[in-house]
Amino acid sequence: MLIVQKYGGTSVGTLERIEAVAKRVAKAKEDGNDIVVVVSAMSGETNKLISYAENFSNNPKQREMDLLLSAGERVTSALLSIALNEMGYPTVAMSGRQAGIRTDKFHTKARIESINRLCIEKEINGGNIVVVAGFQGVTELGEVSTLGRGGSDLSAVAIAGALEADLCEIYTDVDGVYTTDPRIEPKAKKLDKISYDEMLELASLGAKVLQTRSVEMAKKLNVNLVTRSSFNDNEGTLITKEENIMEQPVVSGVALDRNQARVTLRGVTDKPGIAAEIFRKLSESNVNVDMIIQNVGHDGTTNLGFTVPQNELDLTKDAMLELNASQSVEYDSEIVKVSIVGVGMKSHSGVACTAFDTLSREGINLEMISTSEIKISMVIAAKYGELAVRALHDAYKLDE
Amino acid sequence: MLIVQKYGGTSVGTLERIEAVAKRVAKAKEDGNDIVVVVSAMSGETNKLISYAENFSNNPKQREMDLLLSAGERVTSALLSIALNEMGYPTVAMSGRQAGIRTDKFHTKARIESINRLCIEKEINGGNIVVVAGFQGVTELGEVSTLGRGGSDLSAVAIAGALEADLCEIYTDVDGVYTTDPRIEPKAKKLDKISYDEMLELASLGAKVLQTRSVEMAKKLNVNLVTRSSFNDNEGTLITKEENIMEQPVVSGVALDRNQARVTLRGVTDKPGIAAEIFRKLSESNVNVDMIIQNVGHDGTTNLGFTVPQNELDLTKDAMLELNASQSVEYDSEIVKVSIVGVGMKSHSGVACTAFDTLSREGINLEMISTSEIKISMVIAAKYGELAVRALHDAYKLDE
Repeated sequence: MLIVQKYGGTSVGTLERIEAVAKRVAKAKEDGNDIVVVVSAMSGETNKLISYAENFSNNPKQREMDLLLSAGERVTSALLSIALNEMGYPTVAMSGRQAGIRTDKFHTKARIESINRLCIEKEINGGNIVVVAGFQGVTELGEVSTLGRGGSDLSAVAIAGALEADLCEIYTDVDGVYTTDPRIEPKAKKLDKISYDEMLELASLGAKVLQTRSVEMAKKLNVNLVTRSSFNDNEGTLITKEENIMEQPVVSGVALDRNQARVTLRGVTDKPGIAAEIFRKLSESNVNVDMIIQNVGHDGTTNLGFTVPQNELDLTKDAMLELNASQSVEYDSEIVKVSIVGVGMKSHSGVACTAFDTLSREGINLEMISTSEIKISMVIAAKYGELAVRALHDAYKLDE
Repeated sequence: MLIVQKYGGTSVGTLERIEAVAKRVAKAKEDGNDIVVVVSAMSGETNKLISYAENFSNNPKQREMDLLLSAGERVTSALLSIALNEMGYPTVAMSGRQAGIRTDKFHTKARIESINRLCIEKEINGGNIVVVAGFQGVTELGEVSTLGRGGSDLSAVAIAGALEADLCEIYTDVDGVYTTDPRIEPKAKKLDKISYDEMLELASLGAKVLQTRSVEMAKKLNVNLVTRSSFNDNEGTLITKEENIMEQPVVSGVALDRNQARVTLRGVTDKPGIAAEIFRKLSESNVNVDMIIQNVGHDGTTNLGFTVPQNELDLTKDAMLELNASQSVEYDSEIVKVSIVGVGMKSHSGVACTAFDTLSREGINLEMISTSEIKISMVIAAKYGELAVRALHDAYKLDE
C-alpha cells in the first residue's frame, strides 16, 4: 500500500517524540508499504515565531510571515529524515516547494492549487521514504506560502489525493473520533468508521480532531482518512465515503459547542431586504453567523435570532450599533449548542423527536432548533450542556 | 551609495537586537543609500539545530542538514523585514534561493558559483530594502545548500561583488581590526584601513574578526569591506586594496596563535622524496600543516619541523605511526606562534631584525621562524606568548 502519514505538533514535539515517530514510520515501511510522511512544526514553534513577529508589528507583512512560519516544518522534516536515515532507511526530506505543492497567492491562508505528483513519486520509486514539510507551498511566482491553521493536515490530504494513496493517516494525541467528548461522557466510544459528511458536521461543531477544510478536501479527492494517536497502537477512526460504511448507525455522535453566543433582534420590520441588510453588515464585519432563526411575525414586525462565536460578540455588537434601526437587541453568552449527527437520519424518522423528548424529560428548555439532513442542533442554557450530552448519548444508545 | 550590510548572530541575537539593527538599517537608508541586508541566524540557533541533528546521528545526512540549518537565517530575515516594514520602509525578505545565490552541490560546505544580480536589483530599483537570509543558496538541482562556518559573511561579500556595491559592512560585536588583541595589550589601537593581504594573514593567524574565505572573496571581487560593531557607532576598519591606502605602516599588527603544536622529526633520511612522503601522508589524513622548517643535515640525515593545529595532533600522531620510518618524532603542544604583519615590510629592511632583537632582549628563545613577503612568524614557548605580543607591539610603536 501507499500510505501518507501526517504527524502533528505534539507528535513531533520533542526529540524523543521524533524518534518514536521514526520507529512508527519504519514499522509501516517494514510492513511492505511505501510511505510519505508529512510533518508539522514541533509543538510551540509556530506560536513562538508568531509571537516574535508580533513583537515588531501588530500587522506583520504576510509575505514575510510565510517565510518565517515555514521554517518550523522544514526543521522537523529534516530531523525526521535524519533519524530514519540513521536507522538505515533511505530518505528524502522535502520542503513544500520541493514536494511540488503550488498554492494561490494569498499569504498565510493560501489554498493548494495543484501538486506535481512526479516530485514525490520519483523519490518513492527510488525506494525512499519521503518526508515532507507540511503547511507550506509556493505561489506561481515562487514565493513561499503557508496554508493557515491545520495546514499540515491539508498538505497530507492533498498529497494523498495527488498520489492516489491507499490511506492518509492523521496522527495526533487523540485516539480517533468518539461518539462524544469522553471528558463529558466517560461511556463515549471510539467510532471505527464515519462518513465524510458526518465528520464535517462534527468538525464544524467543535470536535477538534480534524478541521473542516481537511475533511472537505478528503471528500473531494476521495481520500480514505484515518485519524489515530501517535502515542499508542490503537486503531483509529476511518473517515470515508458513505458507501464504504456497511451498517450506518442512525446517530453517530453528539457534539457540544460552548463557543456560541445568541443574538436576538426584537421588533425587526417585517419587509423584504431587512434581514439581508443585517447579515450583510455582519459579513462585512467578518462575523461568522451560525444558526439563524426567524419566526413568523405579527404587527408588521418579527423577531430574528442567530448565534455567533463568543469571541466575535464584540464585533457583532459594533455592527448592530451601526445598523441604526428600530429593533431592540439582546445578547446571551450563557448558551451552548448541542448537536446530534448521523447519516442514518436521512432514512429514519423520529430522530428529532427522540432528542426533543429526551431534553424535555430532563427539564431542559430548547431555545433554538436548527436541522440539516444529517444533523439536529439545539441551543440550550449553558448550565445544561453536559447533562444534555449525556442524556442524548444514552437515548441513542451510543455506548453500545 | 549602494551598501550591503551583514549582521552576525550576536547582532541579531534577541528581538531587542533585531529592533536595534532595524534602526541602524533605517538610518543608512535615510542617509540616502540603497541597502541590502544579509543576516545570520539568531545566536545559538544554528548550534541548537546541529545538536538536534546530532541527537539522531553522529553523521547526519548532509543534504538534510542544509534544509535544517537554513531555517535559522530565514527566520531572522523575515523578522528584520517585518520590523523595518513596521517602521514604514518597503522591504523584501529573501531566502538564498530567492536572492539568486547558486552554489555547487557540496552540502554543508558549498561554494557560491554565481549570483543572479537581477533578483535583488529588481527589488532595490523598486525602492525596497532587501533583507537576505545569509549562509545559504541552492544547487543546480534546486536543493538547499549552506556555505559552512562564516557563510553569511560570504553571502554578503558575494552579493556586494555581484551588485558592484560601494561598500560591504560586516557587523559583529567587535569594533574592527586592532593592531593586536586588546585583551593582551590594552594599548592596542583600532586600524582605520588595512589591505586585503594583511587581513588575510591576520585572519589565518587567529584574529577572529573575519574568516579567510570572506577576505579572499572580497579581494577577488574587489569589494570594499568594513568590519564594525553593531553595538556602537564607532567607525570600523576598512579592508581594501593596497593602492587605496595612502600611508602604509611598516607593520600593521601583531597576532598570537595559541592553537598550534610543533612536530619535530629527527634523523630523517636526507634524500629526495622523503619530505614529500611525509606531507602527502598528513594531507591524506586531513591535517593542515602550517609552518615547515627543514635544516641542513649532516651524516645523511636531517631534522624536519612543522606545526599543526592542536586539535589535529592526534590525527598527526596516527599518520606518523603509519609512516613506518626510522626517524624519531617529538611533539610539543606548549608553544605559540607570534606573527607580525605589514605590507610595508616589502619596502623596508630591518623589520625582522627588530623582531628578533626585541624577543631576545626579553630572553625569549625562537624555536622556529618563517617569513613571507608581508609576515614574520615565530614559534616560541607558550608561556612567553603575551609578553612577546606586548614587546613587539611596543617595538613597532603600534600604539602611536
